[in-house]
Order: sequence, then C-alpha cells, then structure tokens
Amino acid sequence: MENKAPYKVKMIDILKGAHEVLLNKEDAEELGLRTQDRVKVVRGKGESLSAVVDITDTLVSKGEAGAFIELWRDLDLREGGKVYIVPTSRPASIDFVRKKIYDNAWSQEEINTIVDDIALGKLSDIELAAYTTAVQINGMSMDEITWLTMAMVRTGETLEWESAPILDVHSIGGVPGNKYAPITVSIVAANGLTIPKTSSRAISSAAGTADIMEVVCNVEQDGQSIKRIAQKVGGALVWGGGMNLAPVDDAIIRVEYPLSLDPHGQVLASVMAKKKAVGAEYCVIDIPMGEGAKITTSEEAKRLARDFIILGERIGVRTRCAITYGGQPVGRAVGPALEIREVLSVLEGAKEPNSLIEKALSLAGILLELGRVARPDRGLELAKKTLESGEALEKFKEIIEAQGGNPDIRADDIMPGKYTYELPSPKDGYIEAINNRAIIKIARSAGSPKDKGAGITLGFKKGEGAEKGETLFTIYAENKRKLDDAKTLASKLQPIRIEGMVLGEVVG
Amino acid sequence: MENKAPYKVKMIDILKGAHEVLLNKEDAEELGLRTQDRVKVVRGKGESLSAVVDITDTLVSKGEAGAFIELWRDLDLREGGKVYIVPTSRPASIDFVRKKIYDNAWSQEEINTIVDDIALGKLSDIELAAYTTAVQINGMSMDEITWLTMAMVRTGETLEWESAPILDVHSIGGVPGNKYAPITVSIVAANGLTIPKTSSRAISSAAGTADIMEVVCNVEQDGQSIKRIAQKVGGALVWGGGMNLAPVDDAIIRVEYPLSLDPHGQVLASVMAKKKAVGAEYCVIDIPMGEGAKITTSEEAKRLARDFIILGERIGVRTRCAITYGGQPVGRAVGPALEIREVLSVLEGAKEPNSLIEKALSLAGILLELGRVARPDRGLELAKKTLESGEALEKFKEIIEAQGGNPDIRADDIMPGKYTYELPSPKDGYIEAINNRAIIKIARSAGSPKDKGAGITLGFKKGEGAEKGETLFTIYAENKRKLDDAKTLASKLQPIRIEGMVLGEVVG
Repeated sequence: MENKAPYKVKMIDILKGAHEVLLNKEDAEELGLRTQDRVKVVRGKGESLSAVVDITDTLVSKGEAGAFIELWRDLDLREGGKVYIVPTSRPASIDFVRKKIYDNAWSQEEINTIVDDIALGKLSDIELAAYTTAVQINGMSMDEITWLTMAMVRTGETLEWESAPILDVHSIGGVPGNKYAPITVSIVAANGLTIPKTSSRAISSAAGTADIMEVVCNVEQDGQSIKRIAQKVGGALVWGGGMNLAPVDDAIIRVEYPLSLDPHGQVLASVMAKKKAVGAEYCVIDIPMGEGAKITTSEEAKRLARDFIILGERIGVRTRCAITYGGQPVGRAVGPALEIREVLSVLEGAKEPNSLIEKALSLAGILLELGRVARPDRGLELAKKTLESGEALEKFKEIIEAQGGNPDIRADDIMPGKYTYELPSPKDGYIEAINNRAIIKIARSAGSPKDKGAGITLGFKKGEGAEKGETLFTIYAENKRKLDDAKTLASKLQPIRIEGMVLGEVVG
Repeated sequence: MENKAPYKVKMIDILKGAHEVLLNKEDAEELGLRTQDRVKVVRGKGESLSAVVDITDTLVSKGEAGAFIELWRDLDLREGGKVYIVPTSRPASIDFVRKKIYDNAWSQEEINTIVDDIALGKLSDIELAAYTTAVQINGMSMDEITWLTMAMVRTGETLEWESAPILDVHSIGGVPGNKYAPITVSIVAANGLTIPKTSSRAISSAAGTADIMEVVCNVEQDGQSIKRIAQKVGGALVWGGGMNLAPVDDAIIRVEYPLSLDPHGQVLASVMAKKKAVGAEYCVIDIPMGEGAKITTSEEAKRLARDFIILGERIGVRTRCAITYGGQPVGRAVGPALEIREVLSVLEGAKEPNSLIEKALSLAGILLELGRVARPDRGLELAKKTLESGEALEKFKEIIEAQGGNPDIRADDIMPGKYTYELPSPKDGYIEAINNRAIIKIARSAGSPKDKGAGITLGFKKGEGAEKGETLFTIYAENKRKLDDAKTLASKLQPIRIEGMVLGEVVG
C-alpha cells in the first residue's frame, strides 16, 4: 500500500443506509472501480471499513474521497483527513443472498454472516432489495427464521432484568385507531407485573403508540431509563427507537417500504427479535384480521399465529396470539391527541367505544394469565375489575409521571386541532363499510402523526344506522391548508359506504 | 400549489441511475416525505418530472432542493433556479414489479409501463433490484420476453437502412480471448454484405471487442457514422455505447452487476433488442459452452439457442446460434493489444491459433449462408477462401481506415506492455485445465482493458504437453506495480493445472 497515495476526506451529508464512498471518475478508472464495487477505506491509523463505491465527475475532485454519513461516523473521519482506498472483493453475504435467489436453504453460519454484514453497513440498497425480494418469493424455514431472529437480537442492544417475569404485547398493525396498548399495559402493571412496552412511531399508519403517548409524556427513553421506569412503576410506554433494538431490522424495513413487501418470515423475526431484545419472557401478539387489514383471511391469521408461537418457543419467549377484528378502525378516534383522549376517557370510566374496551381487556386478560396473577380463563375478569375500579387509571398516571408528563391530565384537557370539517350523512341508512386505508390517508393528509391535534373521529361504525344530516365523520387539523388537503382527499377516497352509496361523491 | 413556496435548486453531482431529489430533513418532515418516497419536481415553466426523495441534514439547507445529475440534466435545471416539490404516489410499475414477485404474468401494457418508467428514470435502485430478482426467480414467458424486447427497442435509438440485408453477430461472452469478431466481420463484408457490428467494452471480462478494436482505430461512433461506415465499406466494428441502443437494458445491467445476476429472459431481451435496434435482419449468436463459461451444460446451451431463435422470429430478426467450445480461452492472447495482434496475424495468413481461426470461420460461414452469398453448407468453404486469399485482410484495413485508423498497420507493429513475467513449467506434463475466470482476473489485475498493452499470452492450451522450463504463460503490463499485482494474483488463483499439479504454488 506504500506506493499508493492517500485520499483527502470530504464529508458528503447524505444517508445511504450502508457505508459508501464517493470517488472522482478518474480515480475510479485508475483503480478499475465501477459504481457498486467494494473497497476497503483505511484511516491513517490502520482502522478500516468496507465500503461501496459511488462515482462523480465534480462533487469530489481527483485525490478526494467523499465519505457519506454512515462511513464518516463509523470510521470517525475528519474533513481533510487522509484515507487509503483499497479495492476488495465483495462480502460473502452477497453469495448467500444469491443462494436464496436460487432457492437454497441457509445455514446458521450463513445467516449470521448476512446479519453481521447488514449490521456493519456492508450491503447496498440493491443487495438488500434482492435479499428482501428473494425472502418474499422463496420464503424461510422455521430454522432459518429462528437463526435470523437470534442474529438480529445479537447485533443490537438488549435489556437484562433482575425481576421476573417480564411481559410484553405487540400488534402487527394495519388498523387505524389501534390504541389498546396504554390501557392494556396499565391494567397489567396495576396487577404487579412488569411490562416495558416499546412501540414504533407511525411509518405508514396514522399514529403509532409512541406518537399517541407523546401527547402526554416523554417517549424518547434510552435502555437504562426504560428499565428504571418499568422497575419503578411496573409499566413503560416508550418509543423503541430510543434503544438500538435489532438495528438490522430497520435496515431491512428501509427497503421493504418502497416495495410494500412484508415477507412472512421477516415479520416474525422482526417482531420477536425486538421482544427478545427487551428481555420479554411472555408475549401476546395481536393479529388484526379483516377487510383492509394486513391479514384478510382466517387461514393466514392462524398460520401467522402458529408460527409466532413456535418461534417464541424456540427463542425462549412464551407467546400467545389474539386474532382480533381488523375490518374497521378500533374505537372512534384516529390521530395522536384524539386517540389519547379516547384512551383517557376509557380509563376514566367511559363505557364506550366497545371495540376498544373489549380489545384492551382481552389482551390484558391473556397477559394476566401468562403472568400468573389470574388463573386460566379468569384473566379477562381481573382485567375488567382493574379497569372499572380505577386502578388502571392510577397506574397510567404513574407511568405518565415516570415518563416526565403531567399525571393530573384528564381526557377533557386534550385539545385536538381547531380546524374541523364535519361530513353530514346524505341520507338515512346503515354504514356498510369503513375503509381502513382511506381513513389512514385522510388522517395523514390532515397532518397526523406530526401534527398531534390532526386526525379523524367517526360518528358511526360499521352496521350502525345514521339519519340524514347526522355527522358521519369529523376531520381535525392544526391549519387550514391541511384541513383542505384532507377534505379533498376524503372526497376522492370515499372512506365510508352507506347502503350502496359512495360518500366521497357528495363531500365538498 | 400557489400557497407552497418554491425551492432553490442546487446541483448534486452524483449519478443515481434514476431521477432523485435531495431535500433537507425539515422540509421532508413538513411535506410528510420519507427516503424513497415520490415527488413531482415542477420547474418554473410548468415542466415536471417524477423523482425519488433522498434526505439530508446539511448538504442542502431548508428551502433548497438538491438535483442529482439525471434530474438536473433531464429537467434542464439551473443553479439557484426555482422548483416546486409536490408529493405524489408511486408509479404504477412498482405494482407490476410486485405482480412478478407474486409470480403473476405481465400483460404487454404492463411491460410497456415498466420499460417507460425505467427509461424515464422513475425506478430507484431498490425497485430495479426487486425487478431483476423477481425475473430471475419467477422467469418470463416468451410472450413477456418478446414484449420486453420490443419495448426496449422502442425506448432507444434505432438505425434504418436503405440497403438489405443487414447482418449481425453476437457472443453471449464469458470466455477470455474471444476475438473472432474482427475476422468474421471482415470476411462477411468482403463478400459484399453489410454487417454493422456494435460491441461492448469489457465490463467484468478482460477485453471487449470495442476495447480490442480501439487499439487500431476509433470505436466511438454515433448512429449516423456507423451507418455511413457500414454503407461505405460493408462492415463496422464499433462501441455500442456511441448510440443510445436500448438504454433500459443499461439501467437493468447496473443492478444485475453487483448481484451477478443474468436472468435467462433478460439476457435474451438484452441481446436481441440491441440487434433489432441497429436494424439487423439476420443474426448469428455465439454461445460458448464449457467448464468456466457462462453456460456449462449442453441442455442449457440448447435451451438458450432455441429461445434466441424463437425470439428472433417473433421480432423479425432471423437468428441462428452456434454453440462453441468455451472451456478455455479462445486463441492464446488475452488483452486489447495482444488480441488485436493475434487477429492481424491470422488475417495476414498465420495458420494458428486453430481455436480462433475455426471459430471465426464457422461464424462467418453461417452469416454468408444467411446473407445468401453462399449456398447452404458452403458458407464455411467461402469464408475460408476469403481469409486465405487476403480479401478479409484488405476489408479489415478498409474498416480501420473508415474508422479513422492507420490501414497499413501490421501485427508486428503492435507493442504489448514492456513489463513482462514468464512462468516456466515446473515439470514435464500435459495441461489439464485453464481457468477462464482466473485468466480474466489476472489480465485485469495487470491493467487490461484500460491499459491497452496489458494482458496474458498462453504458451500452451489444454491437452498440449509442456516440458519442464518451457513458458506456460506470460503476463504483460504497462507498469511494474500492476505486473507485480498480477503476479501475486496468479500465484493465488492458480490458473493452469498441469497433471494434477497446481501451478500457483510455484509462482513467484
């Protein structure tokens, strides 16, 4: 290497998802490198990282090496510092991705190599997309899924607990208004169990549990804070992104998103790796099923449930699954502030919405049985008692306080966006369908989840009868333009069908 | 759109392969955009292009829009100019890619949409990689391949000819030293036929026909020049990249390369689209078969040959295939200067190397029959006569001159790299195997194809006997360092096996 000149480092502030280095075209030609080839980038002191090559005519000059963010950060580079560029062969994991393309099974060692290479940022978007597509088409055996799950746990942060048992609950998502978690977690923790629930923010949904909780407290907590909170009050409701849980999963989700792919084995590994990483010993998985949900048939739901249970057994997380109704929104509110208001009102004693109360109670019931504070088949009863007695509300206030929020907050204190639009029913009739995807899109268009006050409330649910002139739904927004955007979208997407009549046509 | 502020354009000089726009994180959040989402980028005058979103913290500021090269060029942007950014839904072709992932057949209209979207730079690397992986796994029917081929022709430049017939010849590659084309084309053109042969430069091989021809003349010719040259002297031997032939193929090859994928249907469409685009009516395809070639079994070779013939028939290019021996290099020279020297020496009357002469003659023979200047089964005889009479050499000189080279050049004038290394045989024995991949890698490591004088000559071919001390191969390079690199690699890759003995172990 002595006879090769070093390159001058220039920071290129673009996230690539992998370690990538930008070279001038002339240097690349001299080194015999094409776009997507591999090099070792060696820092002065001999530390090095493998990187994928990008080529430019002018953004870096001859003799300069552009370091994209991940490479800059992980190799701890400085502007103007020196690096050596050494062409190398591509990582072995690309041959393993090719194996799956040719429908051959992976060994545990091969999966470990793939996961390590993804964790180290060695695979480009092209290679990750090929991985995801091949896994979608050719699938994975339960052995492969198990090894993948354990490898994803191993390459991320994990929590260890002195106390036992640790419980967790997770929904595979896809249904708007799915705000059971604050109620379920409060009931379980109120019964003396420990349930450190990590959630996502909304990616393509209207609001994640983390977005909802953020209206009343701080959800960005690191691993040690999560542990401290859960050990103090029994429950936590935080954003999973505050910990580095199974980071390889995030890299894969990045390429799944534009393709709308969600391979069966990857879903299993993704969910269970995060549960295992937070130290859960018992876990309940909510599988919403119905028209417009991720899972539409009972066969699919049962297969997924069975595989969650088998995978849980293999990685030491005892798992039960609840197949729930996902054919329309849960409850009547969609959007962060509207949802936490509905949660608070249920905890404060409201007798509806039924769909939310029943779902939260039944998931809590299973968890209480798993945690052995309720005898088999008596969990639901205990959950109901805990909610009705106000103990769940008290516990929720403790959780809010432990996460830095105001424990005295009440449902009535929560203010949704002040710009509203109400759609009156154009006739008397029964609600035939509510389109989940359309509701999500309209809520997002109104500003949810970033604008906490944005969202939708439903005046009626499926099967209910509305009279002409009654409000079918209300859109909330924090500014006029977004309200108008959401109205326009509602007019186009026709989210509610009332006895054969398509509603969008009369909006506006 | 009136109430949304325009963004200030900043050029980002990175090739993305698709139209991509770089936004500041704050702007992206405000617009509700994630990496890989789609927007319409609208220029002041109302012209617009669809683009994929990238996000940065600092490379562009809030209010700026970074235009990557393809977007900058195709939307004709200026530094500091104004654009509007409008979030849009993703192109329909992504749903069609998903169709292939789920193993459903494409309609002609769907394939046209995919090809148009790729041509317009609407698909990101992730989506193109999913396309390639899905086509590799689930394949394409002959209908789909035909539609794909025609769509790829339609979206690129094409040549129209007044004269007829137009002939062409193409090798699917994979074998080093495969320098038949200058000889074959010269023989065919010498017999009054028109054969405008476009070739690639080496991508992963040691030298493409374009790299070889470039040693003696100018291969970078645009469509009109190709036509003028071929109409004047009957033959042309130029780089295909000088025309915009089937540009969609180049976009797909960009993602196939890092994955080492070469889906059957894509290979067929790629080759035949380029032949159709240059206006070929008759075409011969060379399919090298053997250990270390792209095609290793006779079944694969026959299937590929049959499909080339069927596809040719459907798109109006009458095609014949020659399955040739590809288990070791063709001739004895690998690398641009060394190969053109071998070509010239054969045209000047040399009686060997046999493997090169026989291959060039048999491909020329088929073309002469297709062009009806030889009766069936008499093409080889005419080809041989044309070579031996010196007419092929005269024609080759005309082609060189028409392409701006010196027609008086002789084999002995060609000088390979002056740094050489000869490997002596360690013992008496027969050559058992020559590893194509290893020969290619060593030649590339010595500097081929960029350093025209770099490469390898083989002292012996498979089955020949060498005596101890005789030179098995010679490496040529244009500088000492690359010679040393190639020697080191030769020592590692063990390119020649001589009666059970692995040669690499004694190199150096």
